[in-house]
Amino acid sequence: MDSKEQILQKSAEAKEIFLPHISADPVIFGFDQNELKVLLVRMNYRKQWLLPGGFIRKDEDLDEGVMRVLKSRAGVTNVFLEEFAVFGKKNRSEFYFEDFDETLFQKQRFISIGYYALYNSADISPVMDDVSEACEWVYLRDLPTIELAMDHREIIEKALLTLREKISYKPIGYNLLPEKFTLSELQKLYEAILGKELNRGNFYRKIKNLGVLKKLDEQRRGGAHKSPDLYSFDEENYVKALENGLNNW
Amino acid sequence: MDSKEQILQKSAEAKEIFLPHISADPVIFGFDQNELKVLLVRMNYRKQWLLPGGFIRKDEDLDEGVMRVLKSRAGVTNVFLEEFAVFGKKNRSEFYFEDFDETLFQKQRFISIGYYALYNSADISPVMDDVSEACEWVYLRDLPTIELAMDHREIIEKALLTLREKISYKPIGYNLLPEKFTLSELQKLYEAILGKELNRGNFYRKIKNLGVLKKLDEQRRGGAHKSPDLYSFDEENYVKALENGLNNW
Repeated sequence: MDSKEQILQKSAEAKEIFLPHISADPVIFGFDQNELKVLLVRMNYRKQWLLPGGFIRKDEDLDEGVMRVLKSRAGVTNVFLEEFAVFGKKNRSEFYFEDFDETLFQKQRFISIGYYALYNSADISPVMDDVSEACEWVYLRDLPTIELAMDHREIIEKALLTLREKISYKPIGYNLLPEKFTLSELQKLYEAILGKELNRGNFYRKIKNLGVLKKLDEQRRGGAHKSPDLYSFDEENYVKALENGLNNW
Repeated sequence: MDSKEQILQKSAEAKEIFLPHISADPVIFGFDQNELKVLLVRMNYRKQWLLPGGFIRKDEDLDEGVMRVLKSRAGVTNVFLEEFAVFGKKNRSEFYFEDFDETLFQKQRFISIGYYALYNSADISPVMDDVSEACEWVYLRDLPTIELAMDHREIIEKALLTLREKISYKPIGYNLLPEKFTLSELQKLYEAILGKELNRGNFYRKIKNLGVLKKLDEQRRGGAHKSPDLYSFDEENYVKALENGLNNW
């Protein structure tokens, strides 16, 4: 079965199972080599990259749906997905399935609900589904060099902006670090999310003032320089800060 | 035409015009007598209160749609609507139109996109549409005493939580105040949004530190006590803080 036949077959099934006009697109961020990356898929049908999104079943809640979509398209489970924006331009997806006529389920107008998650990608490999030929992490710095389908570049950019805004008042993304980490490693995470270099002294002072870190009686050994102190999270204060934000009135 | 005939007629029109399964619900907050209120409608059909929401046309962008809905249901224009959450439980609206069968457009499953706005309600009266018998501001403190349809109470609560989180890192809601205001008036606004009393000294100190206020060479006269200073916004810093948040890394 070639990729077009496969898409037609999926369309027939989809009409029975899924709600029309609604899709979900998860933006899964990972952190690796001091850089952010995002999880993308490429279908057999067309050589553009896509977010691992999909449709919502008539018989499931939206929250269940996006988790199922992410699992089926990329093998990803156990992430905390947060809705961040809805993409509803009327012509946003009209060119992707241009080889098909209007009866194709996948070609209709979709309003897509954008979710993001921060994913500890350390030892887990994404698993692609049967309509894809690739499911991979792509570094944010490489995004300008690849072709992204529809408005998926805009969705990723908006997710990143949300992350930047969020990190200004909540200690997010710390699950991307190992259990014990140095302040320098934490600074790299902030720099990757904010997309800019930070002054080391200012950063150390501010981050300590948040009150979410616990200094351990251990150092990171093995480097050429003085062994830096290791930190972990003060679990209780961290959860509190996640719930209430960092500025209390 | 009674209210049921009217709903059936609307259903027939709606099938032609609107996307199925998608609705938008705007939560419009006003500030009055030092208290927050929310804009609600009540249909002829049923004595429960509703957000002034509606459906999205097949030929309009989502953003256009929600503005049109709000204008047509409540006469409200010129507000900055911000999407804050999506409500997608599969049975969220199944009981509202219980007197009708499944062919009714309005009775199908809807995934609703929630928007909120802060509205200066000073001298504008809401205008109701032809399926409603009321379109009114309801004080938040009165919400526990009224009947709200479907999950609209949950939508309002979630909007309020969003507002609370937002005000911890952005100077929002200042458009609810007159151009010149006292610090005491500003404190009342924060207290209304946060749902708690604030210590006056702490509040004054923190709010001045944000750098978004300009002290005027005028006082509010006429009270029994010492005339308090008037403030307005430092436009430039205010816009900057709205864009970048209050904590820069």
